[in-house]
Amino acid sequence: MNDALTQQVFHLVKRMRDYGIEEVVISPGSRSTPLAIACELHEQMTTYIHPDERSAAFFALGMIKATNKPVAILCTSGTAASNYVPAVTEAFISHLPLVVLTSDRPHELRNVGAPQAINQVGMFQNFIMYERDFPIADDTTGTVNFIEHVMQQASAHFKGPMRGPVHFNIPFREPLMPDIKQKHLLSYMPVPEVLYQKSFNVHLMRPVLSLGNGLIIAGDAQQEDLTQLLIFSTIHHIPIIADPLSQLRDTRHPNVITTGDSAFKALTNVQPGYVIRVGHAVVSKPINQWLAALDVPQVLVQSRTTPDTFPKVPDLFIEMTANDFFRQLAEEQPVDNREWLKYWQTLNDFITNQIHQHTQVVTDEGRAIYHIFSQIEDNEVIFLGNSMPIRDCDTFFTQFNGKPFCNRGANGIDGVVSTAMGMAVHKKVTLIIGDISFYHDLNGLIMKKLEGININIVVFNNNGGGIFSYLPQKEDGTYFERLFGTPLDIDFKHAAALYEFNYYKYNVFDNITLPKSGANIIEVITDREENLNAHRQLQHTLKEKLNAEL
Amino acid sequence: MNDALTQQVFHLVKRMRDYGIEEVVISPGSRSTPLAIACELHEQMTTYIHPDERSAAFFALGMIKATNKPVAILCTSGTAASNYVPAVTEAFISHLPLVVLTSDRPHELRNVGAPQAINQVGMFQNFIMYERDFPIADDTTGTVNFIEHVMQQASAHFKGPMRGPVHFNIPFREPLMPDIKQKHLLSYMPVPEVLYQKSFNVHLMRPVLSLGNGLIIAGDAQQEDLTQLLIFSTIHHIPIIADPLSQLRDTRHPNVITTGDSAFKALTNVQPGYVIRVGHAVVSKPINQWLAALDVPQVLVQSRTTPDTFPKVPDLFIEMTANDFFRQLAEEQPVDNREWLKYWQTLNDFITNQIHQHTQVVTDEGRAIYHIFSQIEDNEVIFLGNSMPIRDCDTFFTQFNGKPFCNRGANGIDGVVSTAMGMAVHKKVTLIIGDISFYHDLNGLIMKKLEGININIVVFNNNGGGIFSYLPQKEDGTYFERLFGTPLDIDFKHAAALYEFNYYKYNVFDNITLPKSGANIIEVITDREENLNAHRQLQHTLKEKLNAEL
Repeated sequence: MNDALTQQVFHLVKRMRDYGIEEVVISPGSRSTPLAIACELHEQMTTYIHPDERSAAFFALGMIKATNKPVAILCTSGTAASNYVPAVTEAFISHLPLVVLTSDRPHELRNVGAPQAINQVGMFQNFIMYERDFPIADDTTGTVNFIEHVMQQASAHFKGPMRGPVHFNIPFREPLMPDIKQKHLLSYMPVPEVLYQKSFNVHLMRPVLSLGNGLIIAGDAQQEDLTQLLIFSTIHHIPIIADPLSQLRDTRHPNVITTGDSAFKALTNVQPGYVIRVGHAVVSKPINQWLAALDVPQVLVQSRTTPDTFPKVPDLFIEMTANDFFRQLAEEQPVDNREWLKYWQTLNDFITNQIHQHTQVVTDEGRAIYHIFSQIEDNEVIFLGNSMPIRDCDTFFTQFNGKPFCNRGANGIDGVVSTAMGMAVHKKVTLIIGDISFYHDLNGLIMKKLEGININIVVFNNNGGGIFSYLPQKEDGTYFERLFGTPLDIDFKHAAALYEFNYYKYNVFDNITLPKSGANIIEVITDREENLNAHRQLQHTLKEKLNAEL
Repeated sequence: MNDALTQQVFHLVKRMRDYGIEEVVISPGSRSTPLAIACELHEQMTTYIHPDERSAAFFALGMIKATNKPVAILCTSGTAASNYVPAVTEAFISHLPLVVLTSDRPHELRNVGAPQAINQVGMFQNFIMYERDFPIADDTTGTVNFIEHVMQQASAHFKGPMRGPVHFNIPFREPLMPDIKQKHLLSYMPVPEVLYQKSFNVHLMRPVLSLGNGLIIAGDAQQEDLTQLLIFSTIHHIPIIADPLSQLRDTRHPNVITTGDSAFKALTNVQPGYVIRVGHAVVSKPINQWLAALDVPQVLVQSRTTPDTFPKVPDLFIEMTANDFFRQLAEEQPVDNREWLKYWQTLNDFITNQIHQHTQVVTDEGRAIYHIFSQIEDNEVIFLGNSMPIRDCDTFFTQFNGKPFCNRGANGIDGVVSTAMGMAVHKKVTLIIGDISFYHDLNGLIMKKLEGININIVVFNNNGGGIFSYLPQKEDGTYFERLFGTPLDIDFKHAAALYEFNYYKYNVFDNITLPKSGANIIEVITDREENLNAHRQLQHTLKEKLNAEL
């Protein structure tokens, strides 16, 4: 037993819980023993065991996306910690409070060639909000005080405008077993509450509102509540171009335009009086290109000290939550924007119908996804892979139930399975993913076996990187298939057997039925070439009809 | 077409090849298009396509281990690059010339929230020898000159005492297709040769040699030639305690002691006149503990400017290759160490026989590994997983053919399959790995399908983390199985089917026959508890018999 170690580690885990960390994903190792035992002992802390650190970290990310609470990950020293980098990167850009606990060798064994010792201090520095290298547990009082400071500083990143990942690097000297009889050290102690407030002068917005014909671009708002935006839009008759990740498309609010991507692909000249952007950048490339070139006042609302200004630096940046902003704005005198709103509503209905008709006659991935969306129930999560799934969602998620989620921070195809599995701890989740991205994180499936997590995973298998077909590189046939198409020729039924998922196989033209429960892999075989043609056909038809009608 | 881009990228790839980079592992993406096309076009450069960047980087590491030449890895922007961190970490500590090429968004799209853009500049800074953020391709002459400087600087890390990974972060602006008609830009140009020389004053060593009864500890020398050490040892009658990774155990040289780990576990008092350490730290914990406490002169020979001094700072550090050092030392007047040498040879013969007898009566993992070693032919590679396989090799690789290799830099269990698959591009490889480590990098198996790589993979499946059974944490039954044992209950025959390997299943007490060719997974079912007991029994017997005999 090691008393100083017990004191330090139990106090740290206790304060982590006091500050709102309820869940920790542990990747087994020896050096991390003291923290693993303490987390396991804490009665108000839930532990998950994941043997692959890369997947483990994305799994935690999924739980954060589901609960909006900080989640910790814990690993041993060495390359284990390096495997956290992909998910820490995503957490940093997506502003998610991932609490990274890396165990380390004691300071005297670093940089001398001792085994399993890498330079962990500052190893995430490009992608972290806050980091501390802990002292070794010896002087008990000093260490406990240190933890009080560290937790208070770190908790500034658990919520609010500076939210994001934090890193504690914690060295341990042997013996590593804490004294489990000291369990009382884990009991709750209240933490000081710090209120975050921010106000802005609404006068700044009056000249903007008076321009009329405003357009709201609601981007990625997976971790934000946009209720007040809907109220503002109702009172002021302002259309909302809603990204699939805005979480607004299932509200059925008449001002929510669910077909913005298709509209902006077809329309050549959209001229609002002003634009208000909330959330992070939209998925739609035509909308981003249009915004970048647009020459009317743009207002950006983000509760970040350092705003993400892509695709264009706004004329006015307001650092507050969308709810705070629109609550104040709703009280202003409305301008009559009804005709403008009506134009967008008509357009939206028209495109929605066209897309619906497309799915009745063409049997492409779009139709299949459309059919899957129709089976999602209220408040269920649809987790989307990057590349094609999120784009298909943008096109086809026009009038359905369910909340779309995605790792849109760094848009990686990595860790998608694990993030969705993490969300599935707390929500009913249907993951829609391509074959390359699915292969990339097959290891994540193990949480079905280890923690009994249920999920529907729909794998669109077009045997390769479908999104590359949309790029100009496609024109050069010589190199395309090897360098970009990357056919893997994988039969995923074996992956299902490996991790004990139920397995269903469909062709893209079949009617796909989502199972109601259990852990299911639903493989949908599709053809890249045919799909590309169907997509282009839809765009072409929309453009022609829109120009004829409007 | 983009002429400035073609000029820059073709010049870079040409110079990479001119400076000795013959192989590049490409993970498909769009942003990396120019470099991917240029590598594919270069007739003296071999490309490999690997869709998982984490595995791809370890795969390249394996090729470096097999050839001792720099190998490049190429990926697109975003978390793709983050997935390189585990292998870059290992390359840094193992001093392997991994050339990391990350494509990036142009400078104007960084840190503004543009998609798939993370802060890639300096992202490997804790684990890299050299890094450069490239300019965007525009001013043709300036860019070509820049590449000349960069390649000359970076190549200092391709071999010699500063060998290690380098990072080029290369931004590309659209359009991304280079002009493939400019292929002549890729043709060979000689590079300036810089000779590396180093000498030391042999007088320094004379008082050490005169002490007599010297002991050489030959550690991890996977990337070093120790031929001159054998000649020195022959002339001066000095025993060599050879780590399995010293690459000396299969030489059958009578002075090579192959059972050092077992000997130091049993002996309580070994007192040489002096110790010369070559290579990196040995695997054996008893030897490292003994060295740390030893109070006789210790000399460390490493051709590194910053030596790895674990487990004890030496009294004399000589910065040169072992061959250069022992070539000079062999010419000194020998001291008569014959009796001392004889003692070690007798001890080695005795333990070798005891271990052989153990494998005739006990049916544990040791016996199975012993039996597998007996089937390895001259110069074949035995790649060992960390945790138990490398330690079992230390104990049981007493008198066999073959060269043991392992990722001993950071001792990670990650990326092991991929590193072994990379070595298998150039060598006949048998990988011996535990079930957790195998699971961790199952994705690496895909190179069998994509590039037709053959390998024997022997998976010792004890359904969990076997090595943890040897730790004191084992004593606490409550938490052990969940936090450390981690049973995965995986049936690896499905993994074999997924990636189209032949599959063989044995019990640990069967006689395992290695297939002569093809891609094979040989799963060996073993029991953690029984194995722990057998290990302890062997140690106990050896200790008793040694104390009785010697």
